[in-house]
Amino acid sequence: MLKIVVLGSGAGGGVPQWNCNCEVCAAARSGTGEVVPRTQSSIAVSADGERWTIFNCSPDIRQQVSDRAELWPANGHYRHTPIQSVVLTNADVDHLSGLLILREKQAYEVFATETVLDVIAENPIFNVLDPQFVSRHALAENKVTQVGEGLFVEPFLVPGKVALFNEERMLAEEDSLKIGEETENTIGLKIFSEDGDASFFYIPGCAMMTTPLAERLTGASLVMFDGTVWFDSEMVSGKLGAKTGQRMGHMSMSGERGSMAAFAPLGVERKVFIHINNSNRVLMESSPERAEADAAGWEIAYDGMTIELR
Amino acid sequence: MLKIVVLGSGAGGGVPQWNCNCEVCAAARSGTGEVVPRTQSSIAVSADGERWTIFNCSPDIRQQVSDRAELWPANGHYRHTPIQSVVLTNADVDHLSGLLILREKQAYEVFATETVLDVIAENPIFNVLDPQFVSRHALAENKVTQVGEGLFVEPFLVPGKVALFNEERMLAEEDSLKIGEETENTIGLKIFSEDGDASFFYIPGCAMMTTPLAERLTGASLVMFDGTVWFDSEMVSGKLGAKTGQRMGHMSMSGERGSMAAFAPLGVERKVFIHINNSNRVLMESSPERAEADAAGWEIAYDGMTIELR
Repeated sequence: MLKIVVLGSGAGGGVPQWNCNCEVCAAARSGTGEVVPRTQSSIAVSADGERWTIFNCSPDIRQQVSDRAELWPANGHYRHTPIQSVVLTNADVDHLSGLLILREKQAYEVFATETVLDVIAENPIFNVLDPQFVSRHALAENKVTQVGEGLFVEPFLVPGKVALFNEERMLAEEDSLKIGEETENTIGLKIFSEDGDASFFYIPGCAMMTTPLAERLTGASLVMFDGTVWFDSEMVSGKLGAKTGQRMGHMSMSGERGSMAAFAPLGVERKVFIHINNSNRVLMESSPERAEADAAGWEIAYDGMTIELR
Repeated sequence: MLKIVVLGSGAGGGVPQWNCNCEVCAAARSGTGEVVPRTQSSIAVSADGERWTIFNCSPDIRQQVSDRAELWPANGHYRHTPIQSVVLTNADVDHLSGLLILREKQAYEVFATETVLDVIAENPIFNVLDPQFVSRHALAENKVTQVGEGLFVEPFLVPGKVALFNEERMLAEEDSLKIGEETENTIGLKIFSEDGDASFFYIPGCAMMTTPLAERLTGASLVMFDGTVWFDSEMVSGKLGAKTGQRMGHMSMSGERGSMAAFAPLGVERKVFIHINNSNRVLMESSPERAEADAAGWEIAYDGMTIELR
């Protein structure tokens, strides 16, 4: 058995984003229900319904924990958390900075690639995580790792890019950002129970579908996949930014080279878009984009969405 | 005129704190109203009712902006913010890490002492704040500085300590944390309008009342002051932690050497406790501690508290 709770279904910035007044953000603020507000990217997974592993830890984690009784400290303890570990898929601010909230002398484990652990180590602000309480463990490509009680992951590299805040340094050092290259900067995860009966894929960031990735996902019972942008130039044409989805390390949902087309032949039983940017009109309940995703058999994640796999 | 909105009245961790099940946190979760939930420490101040300066920027800033229509982007802009600047009084995680949310190519200014600006510079994660958009300015002791439209501050050093995450390094380098020393690690601020008619003091962290500080505050129309702990050993006796209030750089509210006693002879017109820790029973509406603070003429800040000075 695996229980999955979506803590935050939005991409970096959430919905609405603090400084954004696009159609989607304005609708989220209006309270009409056309766009449901979404916090930043994170899911919680449990193999026993009691102890939880957080996959990516957004700065909204305080609000997310407050909103989910499963994650409250247990009765009879002054200090306690059902959160046993945190697993990171990259070093994006929206995936990393929630660790600054999960301090206060509480024991849990952090899992990430050496590359991402190095990013944490380079930032002394993360010294708030006392190593006496918070242990850091490396994830390696294709190496099955236990990350919680009865809970395992198999990490694999996916096309991505270095975190935004390290871009400039990478450019200086290597003269290229190598966007879309498979490195330890971005991983996907197969997440599964000890007996292997329940499993799913969590891939909140992916710059392109490769043949090995398509083969890996074929026939999966559930994939939660990068739903950042609907079309590659939506930030540009929406006057919201200068970067394409590709430039940010995310493939689009729509189009010939988009994720909906790429998944069509893979026979995945349940497909859920997650890490959805505020610029993405699929967030509007009555939009043509939402209808198109529905028709292609995709669900759009929302905060509090709960999935049980058996 | 100055308009003050308390965005977050809690100390680091907020109320309830993610992993805390003390009497106060449990009451906050219960929804009975005995303890009103509080986000982490921040206030917004405006001299014109339209452009706002955030004093300290907590990781809850996304939620705080979402909850306050004054801080939403204006109609007719795709990207916009009424937030013109951020002023930091120290480098505590609960005051600093919200800057990671205020990214997204939005122009505003950051003001802090050189010491605090150095902490930011030492953490590459803050490179998400593109210097093309976010300019950083040094505050210096007793030097009046304009921080926003019609809005000025006069910073002064208060007894405090280095940020938690830099403690170990300080110990290694200097063999002493020098808690309670007046350095650029912790400042208080006199905040005032251009004509000087409206002014108040904002001191969310202060380890002790000194004679010069008492003289500075005498006769003030409003002081918002460090309300972290009720009594010095409350974290210890509540089994919530090993540190005293003093050790964390905060003087207590109660007792002979506490802030209520220290303020009694100063003739301050309006006294508001802010930056209140979840361990502090003054947060319980019907507690004896609250009654005692009331009787001493102190208000207990809450999120959304609004004060207008004319």
